[in-house]
Amino acid sequence: MATGLTELFNQMPYAQLLGIEVTDAGDGYAEGRLPFTDELRSNPYGEVAHGGATYALADTIGGAAVISLTEDVSPTIDMRIDYLAPVKTDVYATAEVIRHGSSVSMVHVEIEDDDGTRVATAQGTYKTGGQGEK
Amino acid sequence: MATGLTELFNQMPYAQLLGIEVTDAGDGYAEGRLPFTDELRSNPYGEVAHGGATYALADTIGGAAVISLTEDVSPTIDMRIDYLAPVKTDVYATAEVIRHGSSVSMVHVEIEDDDGTRVATAQGTYKTGGQGEK
Amino acid sequence: MATGLTELFNQMPYAQLLGIEVTDAGDGYAEGRLPFTDELRSNPYGEVAHGGATYALADTIGGAAVISLTEDVSPTIDMRIDYLAPVKTDVYATAEVIRHGSSVSMVHVEIEDDDGTRVATAQGTYKTGGQGEK
Amino acid sequence: MATGLTELFNQMPYAQLLGIEVTDAGDGYAEGRLPFTDELRSNPYGEVAHGGATYALADTIGGAAVISLTEDVSPTIDMRIDYLAPVKTDVYATAEVIRHGSSVSMVHVEIEDDDGTRVATAQGTYKTGGQGEK
Repeated sequence: MATGLTELFNQMPYAQLLGIEVTDAGDGYAEGRLPFTDELRSNPYGEVAHGGATYALADTIGGAAVISLTEDVSPTIDMRIDYLAPVKTDVYATAEVIRHGSSVSMVHVEIEDDDGTRVATAQGTYKTGGQGEK
Repeated sequence: MATGLTELFNQMPYAQLLGIEVTDAGDGYAEGRLPFTDELRSNPYGEVAHGGATYALADTIGGAAVISLTEDVSPTIDMRIDYLAPVKTDVYATAEVIRHGSSVSMVHVEIEDDDGTRVATAQGTYKTGGQGEK
Repeated sequence: MATGLTELFNQMPYAQLLGIEVTDAGDGYAEGRLPFTDELRSNPYGEVAHGGATYALADTIGGAAVISLTEDVSPTIDMRIDYLAPVKTDVYATAEVIRHGSSVSMVHVEIEDDDGTRVATAQGTYKTGGQGEK
Repeated sequence: MATGLTELFNQMPYAQLLGIEVTDAGDGYAEGRLPFTDELRSNPYGEVAHGGATYALADTIGGAAVISLTEDVSPTIDMRIDYLAPVKTDVYATAEVIRHGSSVSMVHVEIEDDDGTRVATAQGTYKTGGQGEK
């Protein structure tokens, strides 16, 4: 998508709070990353990121894939995330729209860590008809 | 659960980053809240919290309900969240374990806002046998 | 809903194949049942129904709750089912629309057996704008 | 997997009722199909299969992939299915275990029709430690 749109995503307050970056988006596909920081840990004595951090990356990059097609506000309706391995490094997400319609869009997201280990997958449904009715 | 466990949850770095508080947990049930702040917004020009913030509350309070029974590390295996209304105020979660076994526990979470509007529901599966094998 | 609509559901070929009956529907709420038969078993040597039979009941009764509001074709977009106990008797479903909009409707379904044991819950999203675009 | 295991699946009463066939299974991977018949239709006046038929295929082939590893009873804990296109022909499923542990296994399923159109995807979690505790 146009540079303007990745920039817009990177100005999202919640993305900034966590450190999520959208690195590419266009034609129903998007990529992004979340650098590991101590603030993302679920436990003060551990070294594993909270599942909510991985989810936030999935939801954000999934949304970027949809918005690259709708060029409009496209709220998440529902999302399922499956955790495959603990997250201890930066993580990288790729999202692909697998069905796009005038009322909803469905997106599959894959997330890997620095070692190329698949750490999570997610499947989400987003609203595509603008925000007039949610 | 013992005061010690709610305190432990409230020392979680990720919960602290977002402002999530576990207010009660015991016997497979837990409650908590997430005060609305500008940093949780999904859009710099809007007033709606990012879906990842609501999810983080659901996953955290769901986990507290499970841990009140296991008294051990109980990682999330998978979770689905459904968004029912935009979040513009503080939100409050209640979580209930609906099936508890020696290998997995299943939890239902309801989230409301300041007006009592149901803003999200979530359904998650957590590992209960400790962290020896994930 | 009008008698005509429960009758329509009970003429669905797939519902007839399994034995699913819609017993009530109206105002975003529906009820139905699936009598246990040997053909529903997952294993020829066992006495437990296949998870697909329970799912079919959930999806059908969830759809009846939505159609009681839309009075139009309302295809399922996605559904998650959680299995809480093995099914060895007739089962009974209640479905409630928890968010209804012009493009999608979200439904929660609870399923119990003859003993009143909760055997499954399901959460689904259905299309509400007719079948012009799927 | 050994011929014996595919044969066992094909003797499942519910699979026989619907016409589901497991065609291959081994090493955490499985394939199967569901021939279209009029009995699978959701509507007596239409030509589209009920979503519960597609789900039954997903759950069964997903289970076959898990059981090819566990060689034991492995009940479904939860599953999400996403419908991408209406089913009007025979459908074909491929299932792959994407995480396998001593207490749970997680499986991704893809389903296509005769034209190679992707009609559904599913993500499920199965119990792997035998049926001693469910």
